[in-house]
Amino acid sequence: MGKEEKQFDELSPNVQANGYRVVGTRPVRPDGIEKVTGKANFGADCELPGMLTGVVVRSPHAHAKILSIDTTRAMKLKGVKAVVTSADFPEIGPKQRGAGEAPVSFRDMSRNVMARDKALYDGHTVAAVAATTPAIAEKAASLIEVKYKVLPYVLDAREAMKSKAPVLHKDVFTKGVDPRPKKASNVTQRFEFGMGDIDAGFAEADVIVDHDFTAQCVHQGYIEPHACVANTTQDGMATVWCSTQGQFMVRNYCATVCGMDISKVRVLPAEIGGGFGGKTVVYLEPLAIVLSQKAGKPVKVVMNREDVFRATGPTSGGHAYCRIGAKKDGTLVAGELTMEYEAGAFAGSPVHLGCMTGFAPYVIPNSKSVGFDVVVNRPKAAAYRAPGAPVAAFAVESALDLLAKKLNMDPIALREKNAATEGTKAAYGPKFQKIGYVETLEAAKNHPHYSAPLGPNQGRGVASGFWFNIGGESSAAVHVNEDGTVEVVTANPDIGGSRASMGIMAAEVLGIDVSRVKPLITDTASSAYSALTGGSRVTFAVGQMVCVACDKVIVQLRERAAKIWDVEVDDVEWVAGSAVNRKSGKGETLSLAEIANVAGKTGGPISGQSSSDVQGAGPGFGTHICDVEVDPETGRSTVIRYTAIQDVGTAIHPSYVEGQLQGGAAQGIGWALNEEYIYDANGCLENGGFLDYRMPVASDLPMIDTVVVEVPNPNHRFGVRGVGEVPIVPPLAAVANAVSAAADVRMADLPISPPRLLAAIDGK
Amino acid sequence: MGKEEKQFDELSPNVQANGYRVVGTRPVRPDGIEKVTGKANFGADCELPGMLTGVVVRSPHAHAKILSIDTTRAMKLKGVKAVVTSADFPEIGPKQRGAGEAPVSFRDMSRNVMARDKALYDGHTVAAVAATTPAIAEKAASLIEVKYKVLPYVLDAREAMKSKAPVLHKDVFTKGVDPRPKKASNVTQRFEFGMGDIDAGFAEADVIVDHDFTAQCVHQGYIEPHACVANTTQDGMATVWCSTQGQFMVRNYCATVCGMDISKVRVLPAEIGGGFGGKTVVYLEPLAIVLSQKAGKPVKVVMNREDVFRATGPTSGGHAYCRIGAKKDGTLVAGELTMEYEAGAFAGSPVHLGCMTGFAPYVIPNSKSVGFDVVVNRPKAAAYRAPGAPVAAFAVESALDLLAKKLNMDPIALREKNAATEGTKAAYGPKFQKIGYVETLEAAKNHPHYSAPLGPNQGRGVASGFWFNIGGESSAAVHVNEDGTVEVVTANPDIGGSRASMGIMAAEVLGIDVSRVKPLITDTASSAYSALTGGSRVTFAVGQMVCVACDKVIVQLRERAAKIWDVEVDDVEWVAGSAVNRKSGKGETLSLAEIANVAGKTGGPISGQSSSDVQGAGPGFGTHICDVEVDPETGRSTVIRYTAIQDVGTAIHPSYVEGQLQGGAAQGIGWALNEEYIYDANGCLENGGFLDYRMPVASDLPMIDTVVVEVPNPNHRFGVRGVGEVPIVPPLAAVANAVSAAADVRMADLPISPPRLLAAIDGK
Repeated sequence: MGKEEKQFDELSPNVQANGYRVVGTRPVRPDGIEKVTGKANFGADCELPGMLTGVVVRSPHAHAKILSIDTTRAMKLKGVKAVVTSADFPEIGPKQRGAGEAPVSFRDMSRNVMARDKALYDGHTVAAVAATTPAIAEKAASLIEVKYKVLPYVLDAREAMKSKAPVLHKDVFTKGVDPRPKKASNVTQRFEFGMGDIDAGFAEADVIVDHDFTAQCVHQGYIEPHACVANTTQDGMATVWCSTQGQFMVRNYCATVCGMDISKVRVLPAEIGGGFGGKTVVYLEPLAIVLSQKAGKPVKVVMNREDVFRATGPTSGGHAYCRIGAKKDGTLVAGELTMEYEAGAFAGSPVHLGCMTGFAPYVIPNSKSVGFDVVVNRPKAAAYRAPGAPVAAFAVESALDLLAKKLNMDPIALREKNAATEGTKAAYGPKFQKIGYVETLEAAKNHPHYSAPLGPNQGRGVASGFWFNIGGESSAAVHVNEDGTVEVVTANPDIGGSRASMGIMAAEVLGIDVSRVKPLITDTASSAYSALTGGSRVTFAVGQMVCVACDKVIVQLRERAAKIWDVEVDDVEWVAGSAVNRKSGKGETLSLAEIANVAGKTGGPISGQSSSDVQGAGPGFGTHICDVEVDPETGRSTVIRYTAIQDVGTAIHPSYVEGQLQGGAAQGIGWALNEEYIYDANGCLENGGFLDYRMPVASDLPMIDTVVVEVPNPNHRFGVRGVGEVPIVPPLAAVANAVSAAADVRMADLPISPPRLLAAIDGK
Repeated sequence: MGKEEKQFDELSPNVQANGYRVVGTRPVRPDGIEKVTGKANFGADCELPGMLTGVVVRSPHAHAKILSIDTTRAMKLKGVKAVVTSADFPEIGPKQRGAGEAPVSFRDMSRNVMARDKALYDGHTVAAVAATTPAIAEKAASLIEVKYKVLPYVLDAREAMKSKAPVLHKDVFTKGVDPRPKKASNVTQRFEFGMGDIDAGFAEADVIVDHDFTAQCVHQGYIEPHACVANTTQDGMATVWCSTQGQFMVRNYCATVCGMDISKVRVLPAEIGGGFGGKTVVYLEPLAIVLSQKAGKPVKVVMNREDVFRATGPTSGGHAYCRIGAKKDGTLVAGELTMEYEAGAFAGSPVHLGCMTGFAPYVIPNSKSVGFDVVVNRPKAAAYRAPGAPVAAFAVESALDLLAKKLNMDPIALREKNAATEGTKAAYGPKFQKIGYVETLEAAKNHPHYSAPLGPNQGRGVASGFWFNIGGESSAAVHVNEDGTVEVVTANPDIGGSRASMGIMAAEVLGIDVSRVKPLITDTASSAYSALTGGSRVTFAVGQMVCVACDKVIVQLRERAAKIWDVEVDDVEWVAGSAVNRKSGKGETLSLAEIANVAGKTGGPISGQSSSDVQGAGPGFGTHICDVEVDPETGRSTVIRYTAIQDVGTAIHPSYVEGQLQGGAAQGIGWALNEEYIYDANGCLENGGFLDYRMPVASDLPMIDTVVVEVPNPNHRFGVRGVGEVPIVPPLAAVANAVSAAADVRMADLPISPPRLLAAIDGK
């Protein structure tokens, strides 16, 4: 991000110690120029002969019963080829599971894609139309007559939990409460994680801090709006091009929502202009499929920015209460965290992940985290980098800041004293294997930033963050071409540089130059299943499959060499990209290219494929240091220096890793200082655009410094942990702690916008 | 072809005997409607943002030295983004081999794609231009100034062999002649195949017949002209969409002609509107790539019909001399065949294949076949169904007709007496395994057609034909979806129904319903290497890989079932689409869908891949019966009844097999009666369009009856031999023999057009 590729950068001690040739270097980004110039083919760039334009009709009400939809006038308009409403989709029952036991409610998904009896938020889809031109489609959309009965709405989690709040779903009864309530509620579920006895723990404490915190729902803010083209054929097949984080996810979800066999849907992922978790669900794709089926033509549907803000998943905002007890020396003895997250219109906020992550970085013998998933009249929440963790960390890391002040302890020293290490049993369950949290704290302590002097109205904040990182179902294939170049094929859209990391790992395993390796991304029909790009899983899990597929290729290369030399395969060793004949005693070699050139005559194509449910992801920890200057006159906070430190295991391509750290920090700073949805008195969004919904841009931020710590994950061939999510976890608290220090007033409600800070300063 | 799908047709004895569930049935064609309505996405249907139109500048001379090319005026035209000439392509030396030891001359290919110092035929590409609109591109093409020195030309093989003929290439010296001549020649190579001693053989003969024959170059006549789009990116990658029989062929050829790594080219095959061998080479693709590289934009290039006729490969025409000696009882004792084939502008007619196939159906102890590959000022010949065989069979099967008449023997009985069977050593080398030639002769003899009465001016002809069928490098992958539907992925464009045959074979092996199997075709990046669709190899060889991939899937399905039941994998049997627990004694079963649904929890994706150089293709034989009525007033011949009989091994989807037999017969009838290139006095093509180049259409032909004989190929799991090429081999002779009988004059020169037949009748 803004930093030049450091092609000839010094290699890290980890990379040097392991003697990697390619891992840890910085080859030129394979798709960099095309992505930044927009020449790459994104979701809206697909064109097909005879293609129609689809336009979506959205609810203008935050909460309304749909009394009737009359499409007659729209259908009569010349050029209109199809109109769809909920009547065109199969009704999905509350207990219907999707194929492959997908852990989602397809009933909710179906009703989010197309409102059935009620519109549950401003922007909720109620119909869609396809026509020969965009203008006709827009006109037709305006001719669809929807009669609503407007209902009272609720936007805030704590408001929605009140007994007199309007209830969104008559058939939702809080799960996780014993006995299960018989009255419908906006609380869909209560979660609890913990260990020990918190009452006993707090009784032991010498010092206790507690505070309430609020964070707003924020949008993922990807540059590229959702876009797709669906083309259906008379054999019942649907082909979908779209901007997504997971083509197999789109395939499964579309098949279920549209009532089709999975084999009847082929999904081709476009280049993706950002997702950050927001493209892990379907919005337009099922509409485009059914419009295309009805019209008998390909249909393109593209959101505008306002659609994106009104109708696609933000991450959950909500409320948190955090209480921490410690001994005088700083030893933590008890922690309590209670959170209410706004799920949007349907169940499924990541509050349980917040509960699992909040105290995860620390050894706290007695802890309890309770979470409530609350539906409100907002678009259904979607994933966003480390879903659920940033708000939990905001509460816990702010509370630790309060504790450090109360103990008069250095905030890093307080964290070091209590940091989880190898063998620590995390409050959410597992015992940590080798982790690098302490190493990030040490790097922070020793970083010049931490000891740099501060000026007037400036403050420094520190916060840490944790994310699980995940593995999961992954597939890869490696094909050797006739000239000895190699295709590395995966089925995960490249969001954060996975082409580069796959290519590097393949080159390392095969022993060839990275320029001879071409990483490519393919569609659902052309690859074995792979779970979506998310959870910081791709370089770890899919990368593991690339390595295994390369191993299989090497076996074949050795077999071919053995055949050529007429020796046993065990007599052939693979060294630095060549087969070596250990039998003859003369050390003959055959390079990969030489073997590839005669593959057609020694048995045919050389190719390796690997699929597995990859286990062993390495948890990631980060520690951020933030300096802020506040303007006491205006309440404006300016980040003047920022350092993001993270244990990434091994950085396969350090430039991408640094970019992830910078990007996550920038998004977290936006969440802390500026971003929020503004609704009018009717619950309708007022700031659905990047001019009014204020994400930080380059000119708002200093250069974000990064420190890549490498404590290799023992479960990955090259030690990869996963990178992309941890860096958004610490910034909310790091910024809030910095502003609180600079303004000398605790800022516990986000965003810390100028009016809010000014009010706090004035209220001192 | 014109016949309704016989969904509930009776199964063949072979299919019944083997107890196949799916093989041999007639499921609805997966892509039928889309292909015939044109909704399928063919080569010209790809659109990309910012795409330019490419137009090709072609030589107006049959043979000319290119003195200079001035592109200045064209480049100055507003909207012109790139112009290319031979200067933009690497010069390829005569000995430069392509990667993977591709058995082609890349020097010739490069010079056929773009003329370097000479234009060698009317229509030869000399430059190309890309501009923002088709009109600007056409205008720019007209502004490119090429100065030529026109040279004398030659179009006919025997003319070109004369010592005073204009020589096309100064550096071509006839191969296969000892000592190799030192004078440049249009004869690029002499081939010879045979066995025994033909002088001794003819000395033994009681009866000898001999005759000269001529056949014209004919075009493959695919409906869809060549078309492609190339998009290049700044990382040096080229992505090509095109209408081709082989995406890997296009990749390799483009990489070599453009001087790129193979991994830098990704080729996505469009749906193909016919190829018949004519799309086994590249014409436009390298031009589009280099235009795109120079322009920095995607470029589409599409041929019009005249381009197709002027510049793409016809099959070779030529001359043949055939002499056959027999005993009085009809036993063949000697055969001699000499052929000169027109290769077009560069070496490489299929005359050697003609030499290998002509006598292949027969036991002839003494035979010799000699072939000459001759360059002439026509477009370079390309493959066309059973390349080289139809002209050879025309000569041999016409000579056998003469012999039968001379011996006063039934022509089928003559063939039966001498037919090759299992164990016969073919003159071209191998000993036949199980083959079904005799069975086709018996079916012909017993067919009602053969004994039906003939009217006045009607004649009946019989002829047989042989084709090797091939295997070769092939790959397939089979992926089990979450809902238990299955993707069968191959990388061979579906020309003759391979989607259907792959799906059927996969369903048979897996034991599931064919509707649960989705066959799909993918691109070069997404599959291991597979040789192109041709040689009647796909259902045989790629199908074999599909079966092996399914076997691998079944192993995994059994492993998962074993895991679920906590038994050994050997305790689990796969029966009729389900795992059966043989350990428990209760016969529990788990269906494929049940196992698929929990795959994510039992180890991850279930997927099988297979690649091999597949051996063991089964040779194919066909016998055709043709009735013709001639109009002695006009010379017009009308085919009034036609029966095509062929041993196909096993017909996986009989409707497609019947369609192949009908299509091959129709094309052969056109070759026999109507098709020819007409050149003006300057060697320029006069009939470059389907109105003037007369292929038979539905109204020209009777319903072509088919008899599918099944003598299973022992080297394929379901006995497949290959189907698509044999049926074009017999018709030339079958028609000529029928016309000769009807008109009572030997017609030995094709096409038997009305003026030629009238002249023959008048000359009697």
